[in-house]
Amino acid sequence: MLKTEFRVPDTMKAWVLGDPGQLRLTDKPVPRLEPAEVLVRVDAAAICATDLEVISHGPPALIDGELPFNKNFTPGHEYMGTIVDVGPTVDEFAVGERVAVEIHAGCGRCERCRQGMYTSCLNYGRNYGQYNKGHRANGFTTDGGFAQYAANHVNTLVRVPDGVSDELATLIVTAGTAMYGLDVLGGLVAGESLVVTGAGPIGLMVVAVAKALGASPVILTDIVDERLAVGTQVGADQVINASNEPAVDAVRRATGGRGANRVFECSGAPNAVDDAIKMVKRGGLVCLGAFSQQPALVDVGYIVTNNIYLYGIRGEGQSAVRRAASLLAQKKFDPSPLHTHTFAFDQLPTALRYAREKIDGAIKIVVKPQSMSRQAASEDVSLP
Amino acid sequence: MLKTEFRVPDTMKAWVLGDPGQLRLTDKPVPRLEPAEVLVRVDAAAICATDLEVISHGPPALIDGELPFNKNFTPGHEYMGTIVDVGPTVDEFAVGERVAVEIHAGCGRCERCRQGMYTSCLNYGRNYGQYNKGHRANGFTTDGGFAQYAANHVNTLVRVPDGVSDELATLIVTAGTAMYGLDVLGGLVAGESLVVTGAGPIGLMVVAVAKALGASPVILTDIVDERLAVGTQVGADQVINASNEPAVDAVRRATGGRGANRVFECSGAPNAVDDAIKMVKRGGLVCLGAFSQQPALVDVGYIVTNNIYLYGIRGEGQSAVRRAASLLAQKKFDPSPLHTHTFAFDQLPTALRYAREKIDGAIKIVVKPQSMSRQAASEDVSLP
Amino acid sequence: MLKTEFRVPDTMKAWVLGDPGQLRLTDKPVPRLEPAEVLVRVDAAAICATDLEVISHGPPALIDGELPFNKNFTPGHEYMGTIVDVGPTVDEFAVGERVAVEIHAGCGRCERCRQGMYTSCLNYGRNYGQYNKGHRANGFTTDGGFAQYAANHVNTLVRVPDGVSDELATLIVTAGTAMYGLDVLGGLVAGESLVVTGAGPIGLMVVAVAKALGASPVILTDIVDERLAVGTQVGADQVINASNEPAVDAVRRATGGRGANRVFECSGAPNAVDDAIKMVKRGGLVCLGAFSQQPALVDVGYIVTNNIYLYGIRGEGQSAVRRAASLLAQKKFDPSPLHTHTFAFDQLPTALRYAREKIDGAIKIVVKPQSMSRQAASEDVSLP
Amino acid sequence: MLKTEFRVPDTMKAWVLGDPGQLRLTDKPVPRLEPAEVLVRVDAAAICATDLEVISHGPPALIDGELPFNKNFTPGHEYMGTIVDVGPTVDEFAVGERVAVEIHAGCGRCERCRQGMYTSCLNYGRNYGQYNKGHRANGFTTDGGFAQYAANHVNTLVRVPDGVSDELATLIVTAGTAMYGLDVLGGLVAGESLVVTGAGPIGLMVVAVAKALGASPVILTDIVDERLAVGTQVGADQVINASNEPAVDAVRRATGGRGANRVFECSGAPNAVDDAIKMVKRGGLVCLGAFSQQPALVDVGYIVTNNIYLYGIRGEGQSAVRRAASLLAQKKFDPSPLHTHTFAFDQLPTALRYAREKIDGAIKIVVKPQSMSRQAASEDVSLP
Repeated sequence: MLKTEFRVPDTMKAWVLGDPGQLRLTDKPVPRLEPAEVLVRVDAAAICATDLEVISHGPPALIDGELPFNKNFTPGHEYMGTIVDVGPTVDEFAVGERVAVEIHAGCGRCERCRQGMYTSCLNYGRNYGQYNKGHRANGFTTDGGFAQYAANHVNTLVRVPDGVSDELATLIVTAGTAMYGLDVLGGLVAGESLVVTGAGPIGLMVVAVAKALGASPVILTDIVDERLAVGTQVGADQVINASNEPAVDAVRRATGGRGANRVFECSGAPNAVDDAIKMVKRGGLVCLGAFSQQPALVDVGYIVTNNIYLYGIRGEGQSAVRRAASLLAQKKFDPSPLHTHTFAFDQLPTALRYAREKIDGAIKIVVKPQSMSRQAASEDVSLP
Repeated sequence: MLKTEFRVPDTMKAWVLGDPGQLRLTDKPVPRLEPAEVLVRVDAAAICATDLEVISHGPPALIDGELPFNKNFTPGHEYMGTIVDVGPTVDEFAVGERVAVEIHAGCGRCERCRQGMYTSCLNYGRNYGQYNKGHRANGFTTDGGFAQYAANHVNTLVRVPDGVSDELATLIVTAGTAMYGLDVLGGLVAGESLVVTGAGPIGLMVVAVAKALGASPVILTDIVDERLAVGTQVGADQVINASNEPAVDAVRRATGGRGANRVFECSGAPNAVDDAIKMVKRGGLVCLGAFSQQPALVDVGYIVTNNIYLYGIRGEGQSAVRRAASLLAQKKFDPSPLHTHTFAFDQLPTALRYAREKIDGAIKIVVKPQSMSRQAASEDVSLP
Repeated sequence: MLKTEFRVPDTMKAWVLGDPGQLRLTDKPVPRLEPAEVLVRVDAAAICATDLEVISHGPPALIDGELPFNKNFTPGHEYMGTIVDVGPTVDEFAVGERVAVEIHAGCGRCERCRQGMYTSCLNYGRNYGQYNKGHRANGFTTDGGFAQYAANHVNTLVRVPDGVSDELATLIVTAGTAMYGLDVLGGLVAGESLVVTGAGPIGLMVVAVAKALGASPVILTDIVDERLAVGTQVGADQVINASNEPAVDAVRRATGGRGANRVFECSGAPNAVDDAIKMVKRGGLVCLGAFSQQPALVDVGYIVTNNIYLYGIRGEGQSAVRRAASLLAQKKFDPSPLHTHTFAFDQLPTALRYAREKIDGAIKIVVKPQSMSRQAASEDVSLP
Repeated sequence: MLKTEFRVPDTMKAWVLGDPGQLRLTDKPVPRLEPAEVLVRVDAAAICATDLEVISHGPPALIDGELPFNKNFTPGHEYMGTIVDVGPTVDEFAVGERVAVEIHAGCGRCERCRQGMYTSCLNYGRNYGQYNKGHRANGFTTDGGFAQYAANHVNTLVRVPDGVSDELATLIVTAGTAMYGLDVLGGLVAGESLVVTGAGPIGLMVVAVAKALGASPVILTDIVDERLAVGTQVGADQVINASNEPAVDAVRRATGGRGANRVFECSGAPNAVDDAIKMVKRGGLVCLGAFSQQPALVDVGYIVTNNIYLYGIRGEGQSAVRRAASLLAQKKFDPSPLHTHTFAFDQLPTALRYAREKIDGAIKIVVKPQSMSRQAASEDVSLP
């Protein structure tokens, strides 16, 4: 039974950005709700590699060069929690429900939102000022989940299936990105061969979701055996350590010489796209899901000659997070091998260090905003 | 009224490949027809940049490294003519009809052909030997149109609309490539902004066909003013000479800062793909239609962040040539500014030189296999 | 140059619904603007058959049986005008711009709106009360255009191309419905055969837009020769009077026995769907665009055996109105033969009678809310 | 290990059609192979309701009224077996492999086959005579599987996964039809609500395959409790006996009042389509998979008002059978509750009677052409 009333305090603990690379644990007012918003008590927040980027350099898509530093901004975009209040006009959710978040709520009025492409909203970041269009990207352009409470538009929420722990529920949005990419790759991947390049959290989740949807065989490449072993745990039919032999050759051999029907690039490695197009069968599809940092050399003529399509995906569009949550409710995949560590809220700096340095086999690290390891005073932390 | 009977000789004049870069005008048997084939008397054949490649280096997709040199192979893939005979089981076409060719007939039995992606046939080139799958790519893997007669599978033919000259009919297949790309870019381009990069024959045809379908505005970029002027003739709303200013900046400025909805890359230039993704609006679509020769640096992270899709296209799929012919029949576009020169059949070497060196403003050059400038003896020609 | 300031009065003349079938010309407050809304001075409003339905019976999709009678409701959904004020957060449009309307603005938060299917918003009609989701359907669930001013969400507006008269601009939304249907039918209709059944305003507009997009041949059926003649005027390649011979037979004969690739049903006749599936080629597509009043007998087994897809379309989705406006700006089609009569605002009852009884060849009838035929006092009118 | 050589006799036992409703067990020559064909030793053949139709009335789509009676025609289209010989040009399959059949091989040269829609081939039935286009529909227009051997085009075959019995392998094609319909319904059905109407073999298989792909909830309606119980066995989340209450009401109640996202109609009942459109959510999708015999009353206006799409599907297109086989290999669903009876080859008349009269809970009945219950002489059987 849902608990239907919660005492919501006026202030909360939250981590905020100072200068690039600096975080401070501070007290902030609990957010007030606008129409279509709910208040989420954050029960768990996972760390994504993009959080490290945001903390160091700001989010990947800015408006007019605006950076979030020294503006009391709270990062964190992979979180879940319990609804403790609902704003005006909300009947989609009720107080007491457990929810996981999507990152993006589009403005609803630009060309892309009208097409249903809300993660590509053309008013990205415009949720302030005279021409506030209402877009939000949790933890990128609006306050995120490294806080005890967060205001969320109803469009950014999905229900957490019963029996899924808080920690694993933070991974639903990652599964949503995997699902979005598989949707873009045709949706019906049953019986189709798929190569996943890169065994980070997204790559591993692609393996898990693709297997749940019947892709076969699913081949995973990486250069770290431990990660490949987790890939096997979540269902990969074959794993390839690309430091032992050229991954393109191994994929070709594993697919009768013709390549796979689809490739999902999750590594961001410099050679990744060029490899991907050569791993895929003529007329095949490639999804690009990794934010690579440097321009890469790509054999464009090969793309043309072989009628290959490539799909860059941003975030978790087409309500993919909802689908992912449904698969999880049906126990079609098990994300638990991805969750490796949990920390108390005040230990976020340590958690970030584990994530960045991949200490102790870290894959997905979760912090619990409602729990403190000690009497937490405000504190300032510089991240290297 | 159709002429319903033709006297077909046993032998014909045809150009054949010797060593790389060498052509010989010779006598060959007129081809015999298999089921589903018709015999086309070639009335006109245009020269494509890819012909120059084939003559120098062989076709872009080989089987097992097989090259066509010194095997009596006849290149030429943009041709049209008159049906003078039909093979077994053919009732789709009748003797006397004027037809333009598509390049590709798929095997009909591989995974791609079963999907309707016949230009990406997985049995490309296998139209010989024990496991002859019946694929053909006219002028690439089977004898092409630099001959007086050519056998064609019914799948590679479309009717030439009345009133279209032989010379312009050779351009229908080029219009088909433009149409295929626009189909892949969503089909309904009416009211959508489109940038075409590269004012070669395909780029110019994309402009013409896109305008016929209602794209608006259509912006053409190139570095040669004369070509841009032809672009204006065939309907470009705006032209940009990329040697005067960065084309990305000019496109952004012309599209309110957000970029175009679609970009069709036809230049093959080294920076073309990176420019294209930066010319396109977030969530937009890019078609890659040029066989570039060298790997190019591409800002892959930008593709991901902006949810951009890229579509390499091979040839003229999805029956696009038929649609292009229909638009031409309806006089929705005028390809005549693209046709610049006509030569007699024996003047093919001169025609190829005009094409390669772009002499005298050459865009599309046509040879007429049924006409000779003089008493043609066999001759050998080396192309530089 | 835009006029950038307008004096907006506090009250305006507007027609409101009394009992079913009763309209009253009255004074109403000029609407106040919410965020994302603009105020449109209505310069012209056309009459649609659905207006007659709304006035007599209420709109086709109600919420909880709520009817709009005796609630001061103003119908009218095909209108255009001039922006005289903009609400908070609006920079998409400026005061002084001429705009035509779309009917639907979705809630932006239901499953369908998230997919981009805003005309199928699951919160249809919920733009009031505690759970106001912000949906609007101009002239159906919110006040429409039979008034001197109307508040409009920015999502319901497209710019009127220069040189298009107020009267013709009211037809842009009709062209949008045609465009939406053609989009659903595959978008790229160039070179595809199309049958349009029913030569009412939508059917005629489908003919015009389909021809603009290169469909060929376009065959129009109806039972009234005068309407078929207008069809020829707007571009139909062939017209069939179904009272002279079975339309299915005529279509089959005109398409080589196999039927057309696509059929767009705009008649609402009892036999229309059964005819449509028998007019279409095996594997073809049928769009259903007419609100028929009675269940119809349909040979469902034939649909299955022939792999036919049928698409019911509501309104003018997928930003089709914008595309239609662009085609009009490019002069790709001429809607003027559809506009037959213009009346002053106080003559709306006469205009409705002309529309209902198709007096004097009436197709599209326009009223001009800013002009009065005489000193207009409030008045009550009962429509038969 | 494959057995790579088989002794193929010159003649075989086969059932052939006499007059409508009459079958005869006779001796026929074993078929000779054309290019692209293999010879299948039929190990098991299931009975489909359409077989009963073919035997009584001929196949659903004839060419020029040609009926198959008294022409030595062998029906049977759901069969599997072992490859015992391969024809010219075949390297896709090898002697010794176990294969299940698809019904349709398209001509490869009509408009639909060029689109990949081979089950809607426009040359349906034209696999004979002067204009033999090579189309085949096993057991409909070419000899089928109620024989000891059958020639099959490579396009009509998929490999049987290891460990799947002969009996269950005959159901792969049925699963293919389910998969084709789900593909047409969007492919990515994970997390989508689905109603299946009709618990015959196809309906039950839709339930099983949809659950395998993650659809949720899957609701099955029928009027026979025993069949609904089998539905529960293969995974239905909820079953509704429509003789107890109106199925539309029950579905609406089960889906929060809004209806399901998708409906797959498998009953062929007179009210089925009208029910389906009222079970589906606004903007939802309906697949029509049953060959209903009589025209049905359909509320067409409701389809339009609610923007509903309906997809008639013929057979098992888009290589769906291959995908189904892959899911079966991955043990994603279990078809075994559908297989209820097995008979020896000479007992086909009894098997047909069980199928028609649904004796003893019969769902799918299989005959084994390689086994005889007794010394089988030729015999004539009249079916009621």
